[in-house]
Amino acid sequence: MRRIRLIVQYNGNAYAGWQVQKTGVAVQEVIERELQKITGESIRIHASGRTDACVHAMGQVMHFDTDSRIPAAKFPYALNVSLPKDIRIIYGDEPENQEFHSRFDAISKHYRYCIFNAPHDSAFSYDRALHIHGEIDRALLAKVAKDIVGKHDFFAFMASGTQIPSTVREIYKSEWTFEKNLLIYDIEGSGFLYNMVRIIVGSMLDISRNRLDENAIQKALISKDRSDLGATAPAHGLMLMGVRYHDFNSEDYIDA
Amino acid sequence: MRRIRLIVQYNGNAYAGWQVQKTGVAVQEVIERELQKITGESIRIHASGRTDACVHAMGQVMHFDTDSRIPAAKFPYALNVSLPKDIRIIYGDEPENQEFHSRFDAISKHYRYCIFNAPHDSAFSYDRALHIHGEIDRALLAKVAKDIVGKHDFFAFMASGTQIPSTVREIYKSEWTFEKNLLIYDIEGSGFLYNMVRIIVGSMLDISRNRLDENAIQKALISKDRSDLGATAPAHGLMLMGVRYHDFNSEDYIDA
Repeated sequence: MRRIRLIVQYNGNAYAGWQVQKTGVAVQEVIERELQKITGESIRIHASGRTDACVHAMGQVMHFDTDSRIPAAKFPYALNVSLPKDIRIIYGDEPENQEFHSRFDAISKHYRYCIFNAPHDSAFSYDRALHIHGEIDRALLAKVAKDIVGKHDFFAFMASGTQIPSTVREIYKSEWTFEKNLLIYDIEGSGFLYNMVRIIVGSMLDISRNRLDENAIQKALISKDRSDLGATAPAHGLMLMGVRYHDFNSEDYIDA
Repeated sequence: MRRIRLIVQYNGNAYAGWQVQKTGVAVQEVIERELQKITGESIRIHASGRTDACVHAMGQVMHFDTDSRIPAAKFPYALNVSLPKDIRIIYGDEPENQEFHSRFDAISKHYRYCIFNAPHDSAFSYDRALHIHGEIDRALLAKVAKDIVGKHDFFAFMASGTQIPSTVREIYKSEWTFEKNLLIYDIEGSGFLYNMVRIIVGSMLDISRNRLDENAIQKALISKDRSDLGATAPAHGLMLMGVRYHDFNSEDYIDA
């Protein structure tokens, strides 16, 4: 039995999320089905974490165990032949530490949220960027993004009803970049609660459009009250860019 | 009767091209159908030129005549509500010169061809960039692109069977830009013959991969023989970026 590690890229638009759901097709099951065809084994794959319906991944990391003799580096080629074009395996190896676990060993994750701010949406990025027509205060966005950085209890930044032992997370980076009408938000942290990035983005957007007080994020970090924050931003603007491990970072393998 | 000018953006992947065809849905008919709903008139629209199936447009220009009183600047909003998301009207006006003709008045066009050069294709650009696995000599691409510039008889650079009075065209710009694994070719000219850009790109690619002699393009400009050139590059890498007129350039209205 060998453990194989793959980097997978997907446009989440056509899928019900990473994990097998009651309704819709999950990215995980599409890959598992192809793995079964190739290896003849019934394989369960494990990713660094789930992504919701319509959320994308540039460098999702997954692992699985197999008895097959296919070299790890050949899996991307073997799988890509029959996978749908919006799911691509871009890298495969056999981790030196065969105890490697894509989820438990992850040190940090990098998410990106894209906004297209123009009178009309783009025919090319509509499924990967949130279109906003109205004016956005970019300076204010850049300013409030800093409130997130550091170790905080993000209890308020979580979809209600979620049960989890600890809601403390550390954010290493929280930054906006502006390129013409494209607003790109990069956040890197030790881990993320359910809907956390989308609640952060939705709140920053509400602040930047004067729908929420400028100090709302600071306030919610203390009050731990979801109602101090803004809307949950739509899923299709969100992308898991990469996952970092002790000696491996999936972003190093992204081509463009 | 007023003449309205619109800039339209489309991902050509789902369409049989710009113009109404016997098989498949054309971009033109999708827009005409929505115009009829809005104005109650049976409207024929005219574009700067046709694009083939799977070819995209960032700044296609079109015009039509109408008796409706809808302000020109409102047409994008009115149409985008019901158009599919891969077709967007991003600008509308009433040209001062009401004799304006999107096709006959065009001075030059700008096309772009995108190549994604990496071991595996991208889950995000597969429908808009040609994926090439193998090595490409970028310096050679940059060099041969210069052979195209100037006024030439491009008879050899035309899909066979095409009938046209003159095959002389002037190319103002022919240039490659390289961004990581993305190879971007920009060509601007007075006009283009049927399949001309795709034959130019296919030939340059064949040269850069040692499948065709380095002087093939220079040779074909003199011999006027299609067989001196390389393959016709696939349609889905091609995009009409913009159309220039005496006092109007659609690229000035592209947001990102």
